[in-house]
Amino acid sequence: MPDRLGAPLSEPLFERLALIGIGLIGSSLAHVSRRKGLARTIVAADASADVRAKVAELGIADHVAETAAAAVEGADLVILCAPVGAMGAIAQEIGPHLAPGAILSDVGSVKASIIAAVAPHLPPSVHFIPAHPVAGTEYSGPESGFSTLFFNRWSILTPLEGADPKAVARLAAFWKTAGANVETMQPAHHDLVLAITSHVPHLIAYNIVGTAADLEEVTESEVMKFSAGGFRDFTRIAASDPIMWRDIFLNNKEAVLEMLGRFTEDLTALQRMIRRGDGQGLSDLFTRTRAIRRGIIEQGQETAAPDFGRRSGDG
Amino acid sequence: MPDRLGAPLSEPLFERLALIGIGLIGSSLAHVSRRKGLARTIVAADASADVRAKVAELGIADHVAETAAAAVEGADLVILCAPVGAMGAIAQEIGPHLAPGAILSDVGSVKASIIAAVAPHLPPSVHFIPAHPVAGTEYSGPESGFSTLFFNRWSILTPLEGADPKAVARLAAFWKTAGANVETMQPAHHDLVLAITSHVPHLIAYNIVGTAADLEEVTESEVMKFSAGGFRDFTRIAASDPIMWRDIFLNNKEAVLEMLGRFTEDLTALQRMIRRGDGQGLSDLFTRTRAIRRGIIEQGQETAAPDFGRRSGDG
Repeated sequence: MPDRLGAPLSEPLFERLALIGIGLIGSSLAHVSRRKGLARTIVAADASADVRAKVAELGIADHVAETAAAAVEGADLVILCAPVGAMGAIAQEIGPHLAPGAILSDVGSVKASIIAAVAPHLPPSVHFIPAHPVAGTEYSGPESGFSTLFFNRWSILTPLEGADPKAVARLAAFWKTAGANVETMQPAHHDLVLAITSHVPHLIAYNIVGTAADLEEVTESEVMKFSAGGFRDFTRIAASDPIMWRDIFLNNKEAVLEMLGRFTEDLTALQRMIRRGDGQGLSDLFTRTRAIRRGIIEQGQETAAPDFGRRSGDG
Repeated sequence: MPDRLGAPLSEPLFERLALIGIGLIGSSLAHVSRRKGLARTIVAADASADVRAKVAELGIADHVAETAAAAVEGADLVILCAPVGAMGAIAQEIGPHLAPGAILSDVGSVKASIIAAVAPHLPPSVHFIPAHPVAGTEYSGPESGFSTLFFNRWSILTPLEGADPKAVARLAAFWKTAGANVETMQPAHHDLVLAITSHVPHLIAYNIVGTAADLEEVTESEVMKFSAGGFRDFTRIAASDPIMWRDIFLNNKEAVLEMLGRFTEDLTALQRMIRRGDGQGLSDLFTRTRAIRRGIIEQGQETAAPDFGRRSGDG
């Protein structure tokens, strides 16, 4: 692989990075932090003893702590990489142990509810700057991470009112060095944007896979065999981590239901076009949607290779 | 690329293959037919003069005919590769010119309505064996074809009652030599299976891309930038050929509306789980859907590589 991430820093941006929760994102942050020299020391913690053992075995952190509270001692950057629903309890645990002046951030896919759950537990000397890197794969766990996961993806910072601009700039520099583009947004707007670009897409992917699995007229074997007609695309994001996604839907309820309402309204209109045989209406929509993909490809957020460049069925 | 298709045949299966309509599927059939020596002569026809000129320039057929009627003269295998809605008119045009004993097939994504549109125009001496290779990419046109498109994909034959078993076997041998697996099915069952594995997935992909494009609270630029959260996956099939897909929905109305009804019913239940905060219900579904992807990967219909193995955002 060409070195898309560039050379390591001559001086680390942080002395001690504590990663709390080592799944796909946490382990990818460990990889890229080491590769780029982002922190002098990387400490990892995870609620699961199995995961902690795995992280030690993989050697992707300098230390594996038994508890989140122990991990954050003396850290100048702490990033919570646990499922959204676990963030509040972790904040409560680590709050008293955070170093004065430390930056506390997270990678959660929703922002308003995390802020509500985390902020009350923090001492005033800590800079809480929520963040969300819009990057991932359908795999989870500490073995699934890799250092280029964030390359040319967007990391969205949602600093609270009155946040210290220097601390925000330091966190932005961390993400940029990890290869990401950085955008700043209001938490509520983040949650609305992600509802349509991520949460509702996952919901309808999970849903159609469930619908197909439950049919009596079409067997599961037929669904699998003939999935190359389009269905298989949806199974990728419907294979994402169940707990992570449960928490996202429970914690971004309002925006998800709002965007889902729009989706359903539009789908009903489309259904009517089919019932009425409105070919013009159908081809108008189907033509319009092509432009969006072109834009995404031009912005470097998608490959132009046919079929995602995938090669399946290789004999 | 390793030669997954194997060596060419020592003797062609057909003397003269006429391909009517040269888009992604027609041009891929031309490529694989030449590479495998499936027919001694390949004749191409297309309603568009631009496409005919392109096919001549690409040199993927031995002859380019001005009309479908001229193309089928003396052909022992004729395959209609035009949009579903064009099949009836083509059958009417070529009917009187088909050679006695010729096999007429097609590659349309719906079967019952094509049979109804095509069969009345055929002389009794012609073997009409409808087929549908479940394969494709989001690209269309004569430049987009390639010889391995059908490799390890399924081609579904839907022979009519009383079809000549020898003719069916010859067409099955054609598809197997092109790299495909072959399955035989009733036309109505095909249309139901494809409604859930292909047609409804396309419909909801088109729909969510349309919904996202129409939002006022979230800009199109934001949708594109943050599409790596899941949305971009849907834009691939929503970039498919608009006319092809218009015709599919108009010609598989009943099965699509039936499957869409199931999808909407399930989505409403999921919406209620979110509204009521039913975390157990959500994680149960999200866990169940993972198994389907594993099955598809095990069946060789999908890659196990994270994120389809795609590399986007490469700098």
